[in-house]
Amino acid sequence: MSLVVIGSVAYDAIETPHGKCQRTLGGACTYIALSASYFTQTSIVAVVGSDFAREDRDLLAGRGVDLEGLEQVPGKTFFWSGVYSADMNDRTTLQTDLNVFANFDPKLPASYAKEPYLFLGNIQPALQRRVQQQMNGIRFAGGDTMNFWISQTREELLETIRNWDFLLINDSEARMLSGEYNLRKAAAKILEMGPATLVIKRGEYGAMLFRRDALFIVPGYLLEDVFDPTGAGDSFAGGFTGYLAERGFDLRNGGFDVQELHRAVIYGSVMGSFCCEQFGVDRFRTLNREQIDQRFEEFRRFTAF
Amino acid sequence: MSLVVIGSVAYDAIETPHGKCQRTLGGACTYIALSASYFTQTSIVAVVGSDFAREDRDLLAGRGVDLEGLEQVPGKTFFWSGVYSADMNDRTTLQTDLNVFANFDPKLPASYAKEPYLFLGNIQPALQRRVQQQMNGIRFAGGDTMNFWISQTREELLETIRNWDFLLINDSEARMLSGEYNLRKAAAKILEMGPATLVIKRGEYGAMLFRRDALFIVPGYLLEDVFDPTGAGDSFAGGFTGYLAERGFDLRNGGFDVQELHRAVIYGSVMGSFCCEQFGVDRFRTLNREQIDQRFEEFRRFTAF
Repeated sequence: MSLVVIGSVAYDAIETPHGKCQRTLGGACTYIALSASYFTQTSIVAVVGSDFAREDRDLLAGRGVDLEGLEQVPGKTFFWSGVYSADMNDRTTLQTDLNVFANFDPKLPASYAKEPYLFLGNIQPALQRRVQQQMNGIRFAGGDTMNFWISQTREELLETIRNWDFLLINDSEARMLSGEYNLRKAAAKILEMGPATLVIKRGEYGAMLFRRDALFIVPGYLLEDVFDPTGAGDSFAGGFTGYLAERGFDLRNGGFDVQELHRAVIYGSVMGSFCCEQFGVDRFRTLNREQIDQRFEEFRRFTAF
Repeated sequence: MSLVVIGSVAYDAIETPHGKCQRTLGGACTYIALSASYFTQTSIVAVVGSDFAREDRDLLAGRGVDLEGLEQVPGKTFFWSGVYSADMNDRTTLQTDLNVFANFDPKLPASYAKEPYLFLGNIQPALQRRVQQQMNGIRFAGGDTMNFWISQTREELLETIRNWDFLLINDSEARMLSGEYNLRKAAAKILEMGPATLVIKRGEYGAMLFRRDALFIVPGYLLEDVFDPTGAGDSFAGGFTGYLAERGFDLRNGGFDVQELHRAVIYGSVMGSFCCEQFGVDRFRTLNREQIDQRFEEFRRFTAF
């Protein structure tokens, strides 16, 4: 039950109140794939430059991520740098060098085309759509987007998400996409746009899942130390889709259990919380599945009544 | 199993994006008592001026609230006016006239002294302490405070809460009281100050309950329309303590079920959410217990996994 992930692989420079790093592996696709790899076989479609380090490739491969779709081209890998506020609720982007990512034209390896699960990370909506069209055994497809595409390529985005089973965005994106501040109203409008399942991420406040007939809300995991929130939302996406792939979730052919979607939101929350415990992707160097399942049970305990 | 509530009874002028009202019944004690009255016999200790309207007294009495401790003195009732931002996450106080509340010296009627439940609303900590000392059959006592007392009368506040079973404050107050931004760390410090139970309210994001051996987190109820958030936190307090009083919860004499505290947090959340549905206390004019229990069950549904 393999998951295909499309998105950015990058190098990040991050500064938080806990410290800084000058160049560490990052990018949405990286976080999603690393996170999903704890649940299911994961394959990526992404582009990196000639500076992409062997050890970073090894980290992904070491987690069993299929790198056939990781294209390496002359030039530099996408670079992002940002600094977090003292409370880590705000971050300021200092630098964004798209580099080889500027011309990213995702090429789906033939071996990926029949995979049943697809997560389309935040790239230009027309490119997301083209990738999806090349897949021919989809059980559950969806993805992410961002404010830039919502405002600049709205029509194209709407055409793209019309064919998604799920959309996974944060609260400000949901407000922007729907034009509604109230999240219940925002969700109702977005569900009309195509995706039957909408997940809204709220950072430290948790996440919500909306369907026409269902609502599920989970509070955030309460960490003692948030070391670095970079990638937490993407790790959530990896846990959410990875868990559903592991379970063989089949939205399109009926008979699915909506509780599986709830549990997927919890696994997403679990993976997002682990991500924040160390800089960049570092937590994924030591994390194991047993710790993940323990935290899932912890979620049960602290939300039961 | 009667609950005694001490605090302010006021008139409020409120403006939200949904409209405005020039003078409506308000004050922490009012909201707490109205909310608690759905669960248990409630008695109040408060002061109002000669302008306090018959119909407002009737509203409280109509909900069965014992008004023996509601002192009426010459002068004007406490008046507050405020305006909410477009998203209702911020409010600006336009006017605060303490009036007769400035010299509030709570006098506990003799008939209240043996009641087992006590909620000390946000007043000067020394006054809160004096009221508690007059009670002699306490099973569960605690209350609220605010930034002013935390910063201006810190030592007095610490002496007061040392003898509380529970403290119920919002996240910014918890951070201020503890000097810790992280809420898990803040809670650990506050639990050292005396109260064995700490409830932190987070507005639309829900609430958390901390004990040395337990953590419980609930997300906020997702309203379609937040009409007026005034009094939501106090309504939470009324639901929380009212439910525990109804259940005969006895923290001091052992053998209590921690799940009752969890359910009390849910009832608090339920009452806070109802409060936001109409202006001021208006929702309590029509609300009934069946609706409350229905929303409690709704909380179960949207948080179960």
